[in-house]
Amino acid sequence: PKKPPPVESKLPCSLEELYSGSTRKMKISRTVVDANGRLVPETEILSIDVKPGWKKGTKITFPDKGNEQLNQLPADLVFVIDEKPHDVYKRDSNDLIMNYRVSLAEALAGTTVNLTTLDGRNLSIPVTDIVNPGYELVLAREGMPVAKEPGTRGDLKIKFEVKFPTRLTPEQQAALKRALGG
Amino acid sequence: PKKPPPVESKLPCSLEELYSGSTRKMKISRTVVDANGRLVPETEILSIDVKPGWKKGTKITFPDKGNEQLNQLPADLVFVIDEKPHDVYKRDSNDLIMNYRVSLAEALAGTTVNLTTLDGRNLSIPVTDIVNPGYELVLAREGMPVAKEPGTRGDLKIKFEVKFPTRLTPEQQAALKRALGG
Repeated sequence: PKKPPPVESKLPCSLEELYSGSTRKMKISRTVVDANGRLVPETEILSIDVKPGWKKGTKITFPDKGNEQLNQLPADLVFVIDEKPHDVYKRDSNDLIMNYRVSLAEALAGTTVNLTTLDGRNLSIPVTDIVNPGYELVLAREGMPVAKEPGTRGDLKIKFEVKFPTRLTPEQQAALKRALGG
Repeated sequence: PKKPPPVESKLPCSLEELYSGSTRKMKISRTVVDANGRLVPETEILSIDVKPGWKKGTKITFPDKGNEQLNQLPADLVFVIDEKPHDVYKRDSNDLIMNYRVSLAEALAGTTVNLTTLDGRNLSIPVTDIVNPGYELVLAREGMPVAKEPGTRGDLKIKFEVKFPTRLTPEQQAALKRALGG
């Protein structure tokens, strides 16, 4: 008997799940051939252990869990990890990237970056450097876990955007010029 | 007799030439077959009228100006326009792009952009808007001429870069915060 090609379906995971890992239960419905050679419906719960650091495209195969048919081997069932978009973080392989907007006053006079990591820790990072446009702060080992090297993590890159005022009075302009020595 | 494939050579042109047009004289050396069937060297001056707005890749063909050989037709000679890099302007099809660096004081309190066009005119453009990072000023019809539509020109796009101070005293920081109302 012939074996049909594997049946693939996507398994969308949040970045939090891919960061901390999770157990996903999948209820599948399929037809099986019973002892009398009849096709009968069957449901089954499959469990997938999403490992910390898994990437989009990771495949989990359940052999022979596709529909059964007479005179044919059942297909394999394959789940393919997909990554749901996140509001704050973007993943770049093992690194995480976030954009952080500061006012011009904060950019010039200092600020504190407040953020919540994917595992729920609140970090508070003082920035004393002048934040020029394109300034990037790298937090080492605050990125995604590396699935193949447990204990290792990528970096978190914070990219700053400086919000300029949209209008200034002539007095403000004069004071700024004076302060900047321009 | 068989005709060999055309012989191509590059003709590097400055952006100024492609803007205003120019006449280029090319001295070529080749062998020709004389009346007695002997191969003799010959030099010739070819003239190319570079038209305003010509683009990289434009081809000018001089039929039969390649080397002559016995029992073979002479090849065509083809010149292919190439664009020399320019210190100030970058070409994007019919548009020109230039980067312009201003200090933070200029970005906030106003500045004047001084530039020299590719045909040597000096332009002075007052900028009263606040120049935020990524600010772009478009000068309509100050780009490259359009070869196929004489009288038409692309735009000149001025992309601003804001140079932040590298260090500020606590007094400067306080004054800036005050002036920005931060």
